[in-house]
Amino acid sequence: MKKNHPLRIIPLGGLGEVGRNMMVYQYDEEYLVVDAGMMFPDNNMPGVDYIIPDMQFLLSKRQKVRGIIITHGHEDHIGALHHLLSEVQAPVYATPLTRGLIEVKLARNGVLSKSTLHTVRAGEVIQVGSFRVEFFHVCHSIPDGVGLGIQTPAGLIVHSGDYKFDHTPVDNWPSDYAKLAEFSRRGVLALLADSTNAEYTGWTPSERVIDDALDQAFREAKGRIFVASFASLISRMQQVANASLRHDRKMAFVGSSMVDNAKIARKLGYLDIPDDLLVNIDQALRMPDDQITIMCTGSQGEPSSILGRLSNDSHRLLSIKPGDTVILSSRAIPGNEEAVYGTINRLFQLGANVIYELIAPVHVSGHASQEEIKLLINLVKPKYLIPIHGEIRHLKQHARLATQVGIPPENVAVIEDGQVIEIDSNGMRLGERVPASMIFVDGSGVGDVDPEVMREREALAQGGIVIIHLKVDKDKKKLLEEPEIISHGFILEGEADQLMLQTRNKIGEIVAQANGNVQRDVEKAIRNYLFSETRRRPLIFVTVSEV
Amino acid sequence: MKKNHPLRIIPLGGLGEVGRNMMVYQYDEEYLVVDAGMMFPDNNMPGVDYIIPDMQFLLSKRQKVRGIIITHGHEDHIGALHHLLSEVQAPVYATPLTRGLIEVKLARNGVLSKSTLHTVRAGEVIQVGSFRVEFFHVCHSIPDGVGLGIQTPAGLIVHSGDYKFDHTPVDNWPSDYAKLAEFSRRGVLALLADSTNAEYTGWTPSERVIDDALDQAFREAKGRIFVASFASLISRMQQVANASLRHDRKMAFVGSSMVDNAKIARKLGYLDIPDDLLVNIDQALRMPDDQITIMCTGSQGEPSSILGRLSNDSHRLLSIKPGDTVILSSRAIPGNEEAVYGTINRLFQLGANVIYELIAPVHVSGHASQEEIKLLINLVKPKYLIPIHGEIRHLKQHARLATQVGIPPENVAVIEDGQVIEIDSNGMRLGERVPASMIFVDGSGVGDVDPEVMREREALAQGGIVIIHLKVDKDKKKLLEEPEIISHGFILEGEADQLMLQTRNKIGEIVAQANGNVQRDVEKAIRNYLFSETRRRPLIFVTVSEV
Repeated sequence: MKKNHPLRIIPLGGLGEVGRNMMVYQYDEEYLVVDAGMMFPDNNMPGVDYIIPDMQFLLSKRQKVRGIIITHGHEDHIGALHHLLSEVQAPVYATPLTRGLIEVKLARNGVLSKSTLHTVRAGEVIQVGSFRVEFFHVCHSIPDGVGLGIQTPAGLIVHSGDYKFDHTPVDNWPSDYAKLAEFSRRGVLALLADSTNAEYTGWTPSERVIDDALDQAFREAKGRIFVASFASLISRMQQVANASLRHDRKMAFVGSSMVDNAKIARKLGYLDIPDDLLVNIDQALRMPDDQITIMCTGSQGEPSSILGRLSNDSHRLLSIKPGDTVILSSRAIPGNEEAVYGTINRLFQLGANVIYELIAPVHVSGHASQEEIKLLINLVKPKYLIPIHGEIRHLKQHARLATQVGIPPENVAVIEDGQVIEIDSNGMRLGERVPASMIFVDGSGVGDVDPEVMREREALAQGGIVIIHLKVDKDKKKLLEEPEIISHGFILEGEADQLMLQTRNKIGEIVAQANGNVQRDVEKAIRNYLFSETRRRPLIFVTVSEV
Repeated sequence: MKKNHPLRIIPLGGLGEVGRNMMVYQYDEEYLVVDAGMMFPDNNMPGVDYIIPDMQFLLSKRQKVRGIIITHGHEDHIGALHHLLSEVQAPVYATPLTRGLIEVKLARNGVLSKSTLHTVRAGEVIQVGSFRVEFFHVCHSIPDGVGLGIQTPAGLIVHSGDYKFDHTPVDNWPSDYAKLAEFSRRGVLALLADSTNAEYTGWTPSERVIDDALDQAFREAKGRIFVASFASLISRMQQVANASLRHDRKMAFVGSSMVDNAKIARKLGYLDIPDDLLVNIDQALRMPDDQITIMCTGSQGEPSSILGRLSNDSHRLLSIKPGDTVILSSRAIPGNEEAVYGTINRLFQLGANVIYELIAPVHVSGHASQEEIKLLINLVKPKYLIPIHGEIRHLKQHARLATQVGIPPENVAVIEDGQVIEIDSNGMRLGERVPASMIFVDGSGVGDVDPEVMREREALAQGGIVIIHLKVDKDKKKLLEEPEIISHGFILEGEADQLMLQTRNKIGEIVAQANGNVQRDVEKAIRNYLFSETRRRPLIFVTVSEV
């Protein structure tokens, strides 16, 4: 009986965008969630802190969620977990390092105590409802990442998570080719695989190439060395520590997320740094410049990060001086280029020698490029392919690669969040659509701002506002006082004097002629007047007191 | 006597940023302006249309400006010319195509009739005050570009303009190596050269490589082909026309700037397209899909461009259908990546096959890479080098290359806009600083918004606004009516009901306790209250009527 159900694959995030990854597998009435990530807002979403998946669909099934599996500890895979766990009580499964990073995150958001976490290791198998999940190791830009073999009654699914095929990873633990080949022998119904780098030809370079670039930078540096990266880039911490050892420098971590993550990774054995290599920042600042490496956050140009504050010379303890070397060991997330390059320019202005990916290989991607993507397909030999983790353009390129290696085009499904896929012995087909919009987190509000509010904010930013307060007599034909006019973000104050004078005169005329709705008449007339004078469209707000 | 003056080099734009190029050469009391460009705003400058150089310094010398030379017809070199010419009456010198493009621009802005334009050709020499200017041909992504040999009483200056060393340019007219070598024989005091691509290793590929990529795309296209590019990319128009000829397609230009530029370039002989290859858009739409190529603007993802409207399915005549091929023959200007990739994603969603630089070489840069930059230095053998056209990071990389080829570091000046350089037989030194800030053009206003207004707009965009109107009694202790509250860009309306109710209650309490300044007390208290409830900081405006 049970065999007749289709497997339903329900993408709630990460298909059609990069980030906020969340996939749901359903068999009969049992649900398995893989990843619960957040994504950063783009430049059209002012004020938004981050974006999470729409979980409406899951909330309606909350009693039937059997488990939540997290593939690795990056924000785009764990960043929405506290939102999910505050609504859905289901056990979480993760590898030791991933669990450690999750615990920090959940504790900060006050949901750790009511969560149930289980540690799993690559190679282990767990049963979650009717899903038998086998964890296999994958290389990525954070240690302890896993992909999943999910045996369902409908067939075996391989879910890659974020991966690359690094033959010489920093932790000497390559992706598990043998397990992938074994899956292929057992027969894989569908592969869901990472599309992030599907536009890049060739093979993503090994993390190891960074060592040479670091060595060169360390050799040439005469003063202090700052290395900025993501707080979760544990392998980069290892490489910077190794380079510091080789070049007789002590090392300090700065920034709470970096310090916390380094501490967990060391405790769990994922980061091998001798105690006497590490100093704290106060000790570091008392040492000779050429004996210290400082590792910090801010590689995305965030103004509040350590590097951001260094570039603005607004850090409490630290400031850049000529002779410092700053290494940005990261790539700008699309949309952050301006912020990153602005930071680089300001650091140059302060006299630092800045080294970044464009001019030296101080960063490599953690995602598979085209040859690796094709290798994964050929290793796994799936019947069906569903590209995941990417914007449409990435998913489309992934699909193109799949057909190149022989997957029939009709067996590849390029779908977006919310589009359910059903697979059984009769084939793969599109199912229903479930809600999967972007949920904006802004301050303490989750989902109380939306694209319409974003459009309002954009409009405010484009032209600023003009607020006019009128006091009119009872029959609304006469101003009782000079109109009060406040503008903000519209025009420079000094420049506006003449314009505001004329606007006041204009208001007087309109009030005298208004019939019925003074407020609306003034708003409309002043909108038109200011546009004709300035070719700008500030938002106009008029309040009226009748006396 | 005259020989004792130093040559003064006064950068008013393009040093420390990419775009709005403007350089002033001064000898004694004579001034020569090279280029007058605009630049596009970045994402932190909402509402700004474009940015031009600060011309205060020139205005104070307006009687002494002997001439304005424009090196080529791109917006970042001509886009501020109408602003300059409306203040400074000086003759403009440009090559035929550049002049044609300038005329269109000046006519649109109503200053053509009062301007004096002179046509010059590569190889010609003109005398402008005490400057003897020799024009030499350079390859760039627009035809008819020139660099300048400027003989001054202090020595010979070489000003590269934008250039690359393309051995196989589309117009078969390579950069003028012989002239550069001749300059070097005469002895070059200073080289001012393009730094845009100083971060890129190797040699920028020839425009010619695009032909193969176009051929492949044209061969595989089953339906209509759209090619989007810059309206000024005349050589790309030629290549698309050639590909259309080879693949038996007619060609239509869409978009007024593209149509106008193509017309001028054809008239002046810079674009060789047979009459019977061209059709207008109405004819094109009546032809079979596989017999038409449509070339349009929008390669930067501008929503109002042809491609932008196609991707939003909001064009009056045209809409994308499955089977269409769209080629983006351009690179995203930094800061535009999100808009470009958004456009690409939407085109894929509409069923088009989209081809862009990341997946096929359908675009190459028009600027010299590192090997070309070093070649220019070695050809010219200048005593001093001043990197121009670039952000600090580009200028710094250019300086690094210069020292690699043997220019002593102290002979390289990495400076930013407004920093005057003086050169004479005693050497090169920093001079005074002149005003050189970014002047924002917003609607019809030039310079009436500034970074402070931008910060106000950003703040509006971050949190939106809440406008509160109060009617209180004369002693300001009692509300006479329920407060009127308008919010915009703050929170979704439905979500806000409860919050607004509480805000009203709060206002009542504050008014009752207010001592003296009701307006300020309410603003402050509601700001704090809304922050504590939402962790957001909308701007709060309170107006008060006393009755």
